Amino acid sequence: MEMLSIFQYSLIYNAFSFALAAMGAATLFLWFGRSQVSDHYKTAVTISGLVCAIATYHYLRIFESWEAAYQVKDGVLSATGVAFNDAYRYVDWLLTVPLLLVELVLVMRLSREETASKAKKLGFAAALMIILGYPGEIAADVPTRALWGTLSALPFLYIIWELYRGLGESIERQPANVRELIKKARLLTLASWGFYPIVFMAPYINISGGTAQTTIQVGYTIADLVAKAVFGIVIWMIAVQKSEAEKSGNH
Amino acid sequence: MEMLSIFQYSLIYNAFSFALAAMGAATLFLWFGRSQVSDHYKTAVTISGLVCAIATYHYLRIFESWEAAYQVKDGVLSATGVAFNDAYRYVDWLLTVPLLLVELVLVMRLSREETASKAKKLGFAAALMIILGYPGEIAADVPTRALWGTLSALPFLYIIWELYRGLGESIERQPANVRELIKKARLLTLASWGFYPIVFMAPYINISGGTAQTTIQVGYTIADLVAKAVFGIVIWMIAVQKSEAEKSGNH
Repeated sequence: MEMLSIFQYSLIYNAFSFALAAMGAATLFLWFGRSQVSDHYKTAVTISGLVCAIATYHYLRIFESWEAAYQVKDGVLSATGVAFNDAYRYVDWLLTVPLLLVELVLVMRLSREETASKAKKLGFAAALMIILGYPGEIAADVPTRALWGTLSALPFLYIIWELYRGLGESIERQPANVRELIKKARLLTLASWGFYPIVFMAPYINISGGTAQTTIQVGYTIADLVAKAVFGIVIWMIAVQKSEAEKSGNH
Repeated sequence: MEMLSIFQYSLIYNAFSFALAAMGAATLFLWFGRSQVSDHYKTAVTISGLVCAIATYHYLRIFESWEAAYQVKDGVLSATGVAFNDAYRYVDWLLTVPLLLVELVLVMRLSREETASKAKKLGFAAALMIILGYPGEIAADVPTRALWGTLSALPFLYIIWELYRGLGESIERQPANVRELIKKARLLTLASWGFYPIVFMAPYINISGGTAQTTIQVGYTIADLVAKAVFGIVIWMIAVQKSEAEKSGNH
């Protein structure tokens, strides 16, 4: 068991509760906001809300698992012997990470064939990235962690390539008023997703147990909030602006 | 552990339960009322409801944490050894205080650029104010509390300046029928927010533990109800009146 200070324990505890509230709020915001976009964009916004709803569920589980793993009595922190279940994160990502890329493809409103082809390729690569990362996350030693981490980086690189090469051309065909916003959403995906491998690599360098665990848990939580809630709201903003422009006949 | 009387303990207990019920009721009122405003104001009302929903969640957590921290058996109050988690308030404010300012900006229906710029500036200052306040709240000694409290006052002063200087001019451009109501909403923000630093400073003066804790908990609870639920309903009233006026072509 990692050696945690009470401060670190509380920081993680409060970060989980914050994420639970923020993901829940983002879910409701997006589902309410669904009525403000035209029919073409409703699916993208529905999925944005779903991703946050799935994350809300998992942060509730993560929060409760964290609560069960430790107890603080009279100012002393001790492990209860119940293991903290880290797998919830990977279960969450397996569902949500492909959906995040599908959101981005859907809000662009490409042709039906192009939408299906891009969504399939990107979704499959995203799922593969998560599946390959998990054996590394639970590995006891750094070389095993590094091996799976590196394998997981390959589909990640493919996703970056696809977002810039494959999707780049389609982005240039988007209406001028939203082109920059879509590029921002793409950049947000890369910036927030790029944070996960950094957190994943935290145990590579020699930092002590409690600090490593705090960095991993708080780091993943912040990255999740940006990648899902903030990203979802940007997708909704794109959908609102495209709906308005199309309603006034300017598309 | 603070020395609380049973009366003080019960007063705080019932205040938390009251806030939980009132915030939940305000949430539902605002979300039902969302269908009564025109599309331009739906986002402002959605967010007003969300702020109350996030507060409902946190009052549930605060209530349960309070319940776990003490027990009353045969008329004797004793601490259980489980710490009361005061951080929930700051976690709540970090999410809701920026959103309260966003509500006010959104209901004014400024241009897209002006909305984005005002919302960003005010939201960022609000988040900074909360982040700087927290180290003071958990500080063991009064000088440390006072230091962080003073730092936290700087973004607060900036917000006041922005609400009166920056937003004042935009308020004068609002339709006559709602101008006074928007000024009231602004005043409500200042009056209720001004209450927090007063409560924050309660431990500065030499009052005993139990009284200080009761003042802080009940004081913050009343301030939260005014700043979120009452304020949210005023925002909704502005949205209803503006929707009606715009429908009859008078805008």
